[in-house]
Amino acid sequence: MEAYFDNSATTRVFDSVKEIVIKTMTEDYGNAASKHKKGVEAERYIREARSIIAKSLKVQEKEIVFTSGGSESNNMALIGGAMANRRRGRHIISTNVEHSSVYNTLEFLRDQGFEITYLPVDGQGHISLSQLRESLRQETILVSVMYVNNEVGSVEPVEEIAKIIKGYQPEILFHVDGIQAYGKYEIRPKRQGIDLLSVSGHKLHGPKGVGFLYIHEKAKVKPLIYGGGQQKGMRSGTENVPGVAGLGAAVQEIYKNHRDKTDYLYGLKDYFIERIREVEGCVVNSQPGRDSAPQIVSVSFEGIRSEVLLHALEDKGIYVSSGSACSSNHPGISGTLKGIGVKPELLDATLRFSFGLFNKKEEIDYAIQVLKELLPMLRRFRRG
Amino acid sequence: MEAYFDNSATTRVFDSVKEIVIKTMTEDYGNAASKHKKGVEAERYIREARSIIAKSLKVQEKEIVFTSGGSESNNMALIGGAMANRRRGRHIISTNVEHSSVYNTLEFLRDQGFEITYLPVDGQGHISLSQLRESLRQETILVSVMYVNNEVGSVEPVEEIAKIIKGYQPEILFHVDGIQAYGKYEIRPKRQGIDLLSVSGHKLHGPKGVGFLYIHEKAKVKPLIYGGGQQKGMRSGTENVPGVAGLGAAVQEIYKNHRDKTDYLYGLKDYFIERIREVEGCVVNSQPGRDSAPQIVSVSFEGIRSEVLLHALEDKGIYVSSGSACSSNHPGISGTLKGIGVKPELLDATLRFSFGLFNKKEEIDYAIQVLKELLPMLRRFRRG
Repeated sequence: MEAYFDNSATTRVFDSVKEIVIKTMTEDYGNAASKHKKGVEAERYIREARSIIAKSLKVQEKEIVFTSGGSESNNMALIGGAMANRRRGRHIISTNVEHSSVYNTLEFLRDQGFEITYLPVDGQGHISLSQLRESLRQETILVSVMYVNNEVGSVEPVEEIAKIIKGYQPEILFHVDGIQAYGKYEIRPKRQGIDLLSVSGHKLHGPKGVGFLYIHEKAKVKPLIYGGGQQKGMRSGTENVPGVAGLGAAVQEIYKNHRDKTDYLYGLKDYFIERIREVEGCVVNSQPGRDSAPQIVSVSFEGIRSEVLLHALEDKGIYVSSGSACSSNHPGISGTLKGIGVKPELLDATLRFSFGLFNKKEEIDYAIQVLKELLPMLRRFRRG
Repeated sequence: MEAYFDNSATTRVFDSVKEIVIKTMTEDYGNAASKHKKGVEAERYIREARSIIAKSLKVQEKEIVFTSGGSESNNMALIGGAMANRRRGRHIISTNVEHSSVYNTLEFLRDQGFEITYLPVDGQGHISLSQLRESLRQETILVSVMYVNNEVGSVEPVEEIAKIIKGYQPEILFHVDGIQAYGKYEIRPKRQGIDLLSVSGHKLHGPKGVGFLYIHEKAKVKPLIYGGGQQKGMRSGTENVPGVAGLGAAVQEIYKNHRDKTDYLYGLKDYFIERIREVEGCVVNSQPGRDSAPQIVSVSFEGIRSEVLLHALEDKGIYVSSGSACSSNHPGISGTLKGIGVKPELLDATLRFSFGLFNKKEEIDYAIQVLKELLPMLRRFRRG
């Protein structure tokens, strides 16, 4: 049996995504900027995807800018937002559990003369709202907080954060890294006070190499990539029609009977957490139920190095991740796990199980059975 | 009959590209940064594509950085090159016939305090080497010249340009926009003195949304996108495995029996130029034969607005482009056409016919026949 539990790293595409990607690569392959029929046809795929996505967020179509993925979206939001607003100030607030595409971009901005405040999180992975309140200043221009943490699945109180920011100074941009959240939650930027929302296609059974940035129509953001003026000049470059159309198809499918889909994922998560308790020497670092994301469970395995277990599971066809796996040069030990207070000796003994819509309960049963067999062996081997 | 003569805008993918894209979206869909088998498998596709591309240029694999396409490659070369070298100076030289993804990026750099010199071109679309020589200064850090002009197909003397630059000061970076050249020419950056070369996948029957930037191992360039540290930190973001693998497959195919393929394109071009001379009131703005690119022919049609003719041809299933079609907000009239001295009254009467490997001679016969029928009608209609 195979059990792919690394859906927060990436996912297999839906069949509908595959179909539309093939069609736009081989039949409707025009350049959306071309004035003839093949161009108009290509442009129609872009418009359709834009419309699906705008509807899923209840925002305007013109507020969606397609990018090459989550990292570009985060870079564009932060660099583009900071550069466009630097006359108002140079202070940015974020948290110390952000993804590297937020963290390293903020560090780049620090080199450019911006000042960054990183807020810590509590045992549930949440920032303290009073600390946020105290960190806001006259010179603050941007606050960036992730919606769902990619390592443990904790969910930040986005609406309350927005209220505090906007209550202090409505012009401060609120950026939300929604890469692990979109497709799992019904996000409503207008109601929730989000000015900028980053999304990646391949986390929700869409294609790799495509994503989008929602930009509130009044938010001032500079482009990251200049050129032919596509997407109203906000993101130049020949539109990636297969990627964008594939993303649209994935969003369409994931938000159809959406509650059933999240129920299904919560079912998998809770079943997994219930069953993993049968396994000796495990600590679950994620919350069961609706207080945290439906797809991510972080588990520490006492006395076992995560990499060893990862490869032992791999041999049995079970694919999981150590740390976030979104980065190719792991800084060794996770900031999030430390941040939520995982015991030092367990930091390097932690795996992330992340579920997707293609997973089945039987795969969880299989993984639990394998863990029950493997762990005593690996522990014995270690002692030996 | 259908005749798609807009291959310089974009192309239909090779079957081999389609196959590998499907496989990496549905079977080998791992994240190349994941440590388990599915990640290693994904990483292998990236390595394979990198190897194919490095071989095609006779450069090192580590000198290839995958991007989301030609515009990002040009932006990265120019912004990344300028930012990394600004301590040495702030002067950049380019030409006044560049693609908008070079031109608008240079204008952004001008806003950031860089000074840009744009060299004019002669009737053949070539810059003057003596003017280049005179423009070089102590503060010059970067020269950017396109290899093949996207509007008329003229070819800049890249090697001679490099010799002049490097003779003046070897530290000056030489960037070449190779987007219309790669796949058509055997480019040898090391021998030709190119430090940075931009390439796009979808111009050579590869996927949209992917490209690369060749960066000479000694060239100093800053990243444009920060994050997980993929590609040695030069371009973060989950690797677009289907895109990169598809690009590798396209390069593999296009450089197999490469001479036959360029001969085929030259055959189409020269046949088209020969046949279009039968049509009354046409001025061919491109050179026949080997002195210009094999795939691009610009033709002005006396007394007919290009847009009118474009749509009349479209009705007959013939797809061409007015201007470069890589841009969604044409600044109206082309800089290149003006630059090479096209008569003012013909500037807005010009179409680009661009050929690809799927085109056939019969399609040219068909287009000539249609033009012979259409043009007198359109001209009469105009006078009427």
